[in-house]
Amino acid sequence: MSTGDQEYYNYDWYENAVPTKPPKEIIPPCDPTADDRLYHTCIAAVSLVIMLVLAVLARRKKVDDNLRGISGLLSPVNFLDHTQHKGLAVAVYGVLFCKVFGLGITPNPLPFVKDSPHREYWMILALVYYPALYYPLLACGTLHSQVGYVLGSLLSWSHFGVLVWQKVDCPKTPEIYKYYALFTSLPQIACLAFLSFQYPLLLFKGLRGSDKNNTSEDLMSSYYKDYVKKILKKKKPSKTSASKPNVFERLTDAIKSYIYTPEDVFRFPLKLAISVVVAFISLYQMAVLLVSCVVPTLQIVRRGVDEDIAFLLAGFNIVLSEDRAEVVKIVIYYMWCLEVCYISAITLSCLVNLAMLMRSMVLHRSNLRGLYRGDVYTVYSCQRSIRPSRPALVCWMGYTSYQAAVICLSMTIQTLVFFICLTFAVFLVIIPVLYGQNLMLFHIIAHMWPFWLMLFLAVLVQHLAARFMFIKKVSGTRDLHNRGSLFLMTYLLFPVNVLLGVLLGIWRVVITALFNIIHLGRMDISLLNRNVEAFDPSYRCYAHYLKIEVSQSHPVMKAFCGLLLQTYGGGAGPRTRDAEEGIQLVQQEKKQNKVSSARRARGHWQLLYTLVNNPSLVASRKHFQRQSSESFLNGTLNRAGKDGSRKEGGVKEASKEAESASSN
Amino acid sequence: MSTGDQEYYNYDWYENAVPTKPPKEIIPPCDPTADDRLYHTCIAAVSLVIMLVLAVLARRKKVDDNLRGISGLLSPVNFLDHTQHKGLAVAVYGVLFCKVFGLGITPNPLPFVKDSPHREYWMILALVYYPALYYPLLACGTLHSQVGYVLGSLLSWSHFGVLVWQKVDCPKTPEIYKYYALFTSLPQIACLAFLSFQYPLLLFKGLRGSDKNNTSEDLMSSYYKDYVKKILKKKKPSKTSASKPNVFERLTDAIKSYIYTPEDVFRFPLKLAISVVVAFISLYQMAVLLVSCVVPTLQIVRRGVDEDIAFLLAGFNIVLSEDRAEVVKIVIYYMWCLEVCYISAITLSCLVNLAMLMRSMVLHRSNLRGLYRGDVYTVYSCQRSIRPSRPALVCWMGYTSYQAAVICLSMTIQTLVFFICLTFAVFLVIIPVLYGQNLMLFHIIAHMWPFWLMLFLAVLVQHLAARFMFIKKVSGTRDLHNRGSLFLMTYLLFPVNVLLGVLLGIWRVVITALFNIIHLGRMDISLLNRNVEAFDPSYRCYAHYLKIEVSQSHPVMKAFCGLLLQTYGGGAGPRTRDAEEGIQLVQQEKKQNKVSSARRARGHWQLLYTLVNNPSLVASRKHFQRQSSESFLNGTLNRAGKDGSRKEGGVKEASKEAESASSN
Repeated sequence: MSTGDQEYYNYDWYENAVPTKPPKEIIPPCDPTADDRLYHTCIAAVSLVIMLVLAVLARRKKVDDNLRGISGLLSPVNFLDHTQHKGLAVAVYGVLFCKVFGLGITPNPLPFVKDSPHREYWMILALVYYPALYYPLLACGTLHSQVGYVLGSLLSWSHFGVLVWQKVDCPKTPEIYKYYALFTSLPQIACLAFLSFQYPLLLFKGLRGSDKNNTSEDLMSSYYKDYVKKILKKKKPSKTSASKPNVFERLTDAIKSYIYTPEDVFRFPLKLAISVVVAFISLYQMAVLLVSCVVPTLQIVRRGVDEDIAFLLAGFNIVLSEDRAEVVKIVIYYMWCLEVCYISAITLSCLVNLAMLMRSMVLHRSNLRGLYRGDVYTVYSCQRSIRPSRPALVCWMGYTSYQAAVICLSMTIQTLVFFICLTFAVFLVIIPVLYGQNLMLFHIIAHMWPFWLMLFLAVLVQHLAARFMFIKKVSGTRDLHNRGSLFLMTYLLFPVNVLLGVLLGIWRVVITALFNIIHLGRMDISLLNRNVEAFDPSYRCYAHYLKIEVSQSHPVMKAFCGLLLQTYGGGAGPRTRDAEEGIQLVQQEKKQNKVSSARRARGHWQLLYTLVNNPSLVASRKHFQRQSSESFLNGTLNRAGKDGSRKEGGVKEASKEAESASSN
Repeated sequence: MSTGDQEYYNYDWYENAVPTKPPKEIIPPCDPTADDRLYHTCIAAVSLVIMLVLAVLARRKKVDDNLRGISGLLSPVNFLDHTQHKGLAVAVYGVLFCKVFGLGITPNPLPFVKDSPHREYWMILALVYYPALYYPLLACGTLHSQVGYVLGSLLSWSHFGVLVWQKVDCPKTPEIYKYYALFTSLPQIACLAFLSFQYPLLLFKGLRGSDKNNTSEDLMSSYYKDYVKKILKKKKPSKTSASKPNVFERLTDAIKSYIYTPEDVFRFPLKLAISVVVAFISLYQMAVLLVSCVVPTLQIVRRGVDEDIAFLLAGFNIVLSEDRAEVVKIVIYYMWCLEVCYISAITLSCLVNLAMLMRSMVLHRSNLRGLYRGDVYTVYSCQRSIRPSRPALVCWMGYTSYQAAVICLSMTIQTLVFFICLTFAVFLVIIPVLYGQNLMLFHIIAHMWPFWLMLFLAVLVQHLAARFMFIKKVSGTRDLHNRGSLFLMTYLLFPVNVLLGVLLGIWRVVITALFNIIHLGRMDISLLNRNVEAFDPSYRCYAHYLKIEVSQSHPVMKAFCGLLLQTYGGGAGPRTRDAEEGIQLVQQEKKQNKVSSARRARGHWQLLYTLVNNPSLVASRKHFQRQSSESFLNGTLNRAGKDGSRKEGGVKEASKEAESASSN
C-alpha cells in the first residue's frame, strides 16, 4: 500500500488494518528420524514384554518370599511410606505430568493416530495410555531384584535416548513458538535422565549387596525409631524471652517462615513429595507456555510496525505525532513496554508461586507434626476425627493432580492481573513521569489536593485527640476521658469519615483481591472466611488429604510396628515390609509359643501398647479372636493406660502422639 | 437521514452513529418558592439563636442542678448508652447522611454559593456546615426541659415544612432523572417527620410529668437491672437432643440465623443502632441512584431506536435480519432484556445487602453478649485485651460512617457483577433456549460430552471404589483395605484428576469471588483467611469498635453503678446520670458519714464488689486517696473475691461477666 494512495486507503483500510508483516520465519513441520508412531509402537510392545517378564519373576519370587508377588507388581508405589527412596516415583510422575500437560495443546494426542476428526476420543484414550506406558518404569523397581533393575535401566535408557534424539533432530517445531516443544520437554528429559541414572545405581548397589538394608524396607528403617527417639529426648528449655519481639525480629520471623529448611528427623510423605515436584514442573510448564504464546507474537508485530500505523491510528482519531516516522517510533516503544510488562508479570507470578510453594512446604510439615501430636484444633480450628472416610480417600487420591491444576490456573490468572496492573502503572505513572507528558493521573490527584489534605487532617486529628485527649492512663489502667468532647467529635466528623470509609472500602476490595489472587495456588489455606473455610474446594481437599496421611502413616505407630516385626521376625531378615503385614503378624502372635519367657513378656507389653494406641488393630484382632472375652481386653487396656501414665517427660509426649495415632 | 440516502450514509455515519432521538422531555431548572439560599440563611440564624437560648438555659439549669450544663449541651449524644431513647439521634444522623450523600452529585454543595469555580473548597466547607446546621436538633433534647422541647419542635417543624414545600413546588428537577431529587429526599423527609412528631411528644410527656423517670436517665433505667436479673435467673435446661440435626433442621437453623428477632433483655448500643439505620438509608440511596442513572437513559435510547440501527449494525458486519423493521424489533427487544437484567441486578443486590444487614445484627448481638460473658476467644478467635486504646477509639468514632460507605461500595460492585452475570445468562442461555437460536454455549458443551462423561465416570468410580473397596468397617472402626489397588488407581487416574483439578480450581475462583462480593458490605466478618483476618480494614475496625463498646458500657457494670447511685442519691431523685458521675460519687463516699450502719455495710459491700470488677475505678480511687495503705485495699479485694466465690449458680455467671467487665 503506497502512502500516496490516500483514496484507496480511506475506503479499504478495514481489510488492511493489520500492517503488512515482514516475511515470518517459516518452520517446516519436522519429522524426526525416530518417528513418534514407530517409537511408541516399539516401546509399548517392549513395555508389555517387560511387564510379562516381571510377572513371571514375581510369581517365582513369591514362592521364595511367600509375601510379595503379582500384587506387589500391581501397586509399585507405596504412597503411605515416608522412608522409601522417593526418586523413582517422583520422576515417573514428572514424566507423566509433562505428557498430560502437552496433551492440551498438541493436535495429535495419541501418536498412533494423525489428524483424526475425533480428537476428543483419542484425547481420552491418551489419558489412559500414557499412565500405562510409563507404568513399567515404576514396576521395575518394585521387586528389588537385579533383573528388575536391569530391565528398568534398559527401559529408561531407551525412553531417554529416543526423546533426546528426537529433540536433537527437530529442535524447532512449527507449533506455538519454534523452541516451545524443546523447552517444554526439558523437565521430561531431566526426569528420564534421573531414572536412567537411578536404575543402574540400584543395580550396582544390589550387586554390592548393600540393597538388603536399604531404605525401601519401610518398617525396618531407622527413620521411625529416630523420630520416636527425638520425641523422647528431653527438650532443652527454649529461650523464650518474655519481652515482645520488636518489628525487625517479627519481620525476620515472617521471612523465615517462607523459607523451607529440611530437618533431619522429619521426612515428607511420598505423596506430598510428588505433589511438590509436580507443582514445580507445572509452574515451569505454565511459564514456558505463557511466554511462548504471547511474546514471539508481540515481537513479530513490533518488528512489522511501519508508517501505515499512523493512518490506522488516525482512523481512530489518535494522533501521536505529526511526523509518521516518529509515530512508528512511539508505537514500537509502547509495544516494547507492553512486552516488558508482560514478561515482568510472568516473572512476578513465578516468584510469587515459588514463595507460596516454599511456604506450603513449611506449613505441610508443621501441620503434619501438629496432627501427629494430636493438635487437631490448631490445624483445622475445629475438632475433627482423624479417620479414613469416603470423601477423605477421594481427596487423598486426587491431591497431587489438584495441586498441579490449581497452580496452572493461578499462574494464568496472576499473569493476567499483574499484567493489567503493570500496564496501568507503566502507562499512567512511569512513562508520564519519565517524559513529563500525559500526566492525567497526577493532574487528577493534584486537582483533588484539598480533599487529600482534609482527609489526612481528619485522620491526624482523630488519632491525636484519641491519644492525648480521650484516653487517660492512671496507675497502669487506661480509661476514657472527656466523654463529652469525644461524642461531639464523633458527630461532627461523621461526614468526613464517610469519605474515609470509601477509601477504606476500596482498600478492602484491593487487599482482598490481591491476597486471594496471590494465594490462589495454595491448597493448604482457605481463601474464605473462618466460618466457611470448608466451602473452599481446594482447602477441603487438603484437609481430607491430611486426615488419611496422618491416620495411615503415623511415625510412632510405624515405629512400634517395626519394633514388633523385629521381635518376631528374629534373625530371618526383613521378610515383612509394611504395616498390613505387621498387623497380620500381630494376629498370629498367640499361635507362636516358641519364644522365650522374657521375650514373650516384652512382646506382650509391646502388643498392648500398640493396641492401646491403635484401636483399629484391636478391631482386627477381635475379628480373629472373637472367643476372647471383651472384659479381658478392657482390663489390659486400662492397665496399659496406667503404665503409660506412670512414665514422665518425653514419654508423655510420645503417648500423646500415640494417642492421636489411635484415632485411626 | 432518509433511508435512500445510501451515499451520504456510507460516508458520514460515524458522525450520526447514535440514532436520532425523539425530542426528550425537557425539564426546566426549577426554583422553588422557598429559595434554598434564603432558607438556609434564615434557618442557620435561627439555629444559632436557639443554641444561644439553650446555652443560657443550661447555665441557669447548671446552678439548679449542679451537674449538667454547657458541657452537656456540647455533647448531646451519649453513644455509650443502651437505654436512652434512640430516636432523636438516629433521625438526626439519617438527615445528615442524606445531605452528605447528596453532596457527591449536586453541583452546588453549599446553598449560599452558586456555580463557583472552586467547588472542592465549598464541598469541604459543606462537610462542616451540615453537621453544625443539624446540631441544634440534637441539642434541644439534651436539657430535658420544656423550653428545649418547644424549640426543638419549632426547629424540626420548620426544617420539615420547608423541605416538603420545596418538593411540592418542584417535584421534577433536571439533574440525573426528573424524580431523582424527590426520591432521594424521602428518607430525609421521613427522619424530619419523625423529629417533628417526637419533640411535641416529649413536650407533652414532660408536661404530664412522666419525664422524670423516662428512659433517658441511663443508670437509673431498669434495663441493666433486668439484664442482671436475667443472668442470675436459673437457666431452664435447654432440650439439646443428642441426635445430630438432620438436613432440614440445619437448613431451618441457617435461615433463622439470618432473621433478626428482638429480645426483651437486650438492647443495641446507640452507636450500633445508628449504624444500622444509616446503613439502611445508604442502601436506599444507592439503589435510587443506580436506577436513576441508567434506567431512564436506557429507556430513552430504546424509544429512539429506528431503522438506522440496521445500517449501524451492518457497519460492524452484524446482520440480525434482512428486514429492517425486524432488526428494529430485535434491537428493542434486546435492549429491553438489558434493562430487565439491570433492574434485576439492583434488586438482587438490595436483597443480598438487606439479608447481610439482618445477619450482621444477629451477629452483633451474639458478639456483644459473648464479650460481656468474657468469651473473647470465640469472638476474635484470639486472646485480646478489651480496653480502650488509640486505634480502637479512632475506629469506634468512624464505625458508623465506614459501615455506610462500605455498603455504598458493595452495592455498586454487586450491581455491576450481577448485571454482567445476568446478561451472560440471558443472552447465552435463556434467549437461545426460548427461541432455539444461537445455541453456541450448548453446542460447545454438547461437543465436549465425552469429556464430561469421562470426568463424571472418574469421579463416580473413585467414590464407589473408596466406599466399597478401600474402606473396611470392622467393629465400628474404619480402616484402609486393598492398599495395593488404591495405590494403582491413584496412579492411573492421575491424568484424569488433573482435568478434574482444573474444574475444581475454577470452582474455587468462582466461589471465592462470589462469597467476597456478597459479603463485601459486612464489617463484622473478615474477607481474608483466618490467619490474616486483621488485615481486612473493615473487620479490624469492627473488632476495635467492639472493644470500646464492651469495655465502656458493660451492662453488669452499669447495673452496679446504678445500684450505688440509688443508695447514695437517696430520695433526692435522679440527680446523677452517667457512669462518670457515679465514679465521682464513689470517690466522695468516705466523706459521708450520715448513713445508717446497715446502709453503710451494704454500701461497703457494693463498693468493694464494684472495685473488684472495675480496676479502673480502683485506680481513680487510689488517685484521690493516696494516704490509705495499699495493703488494706488488697485485703479487701481478696475478701470480696472470697465472698464472690461462696455464691453459686447464676452469681458465678454474673461474676464471670463482671470479670470481663473488669478489663476496662
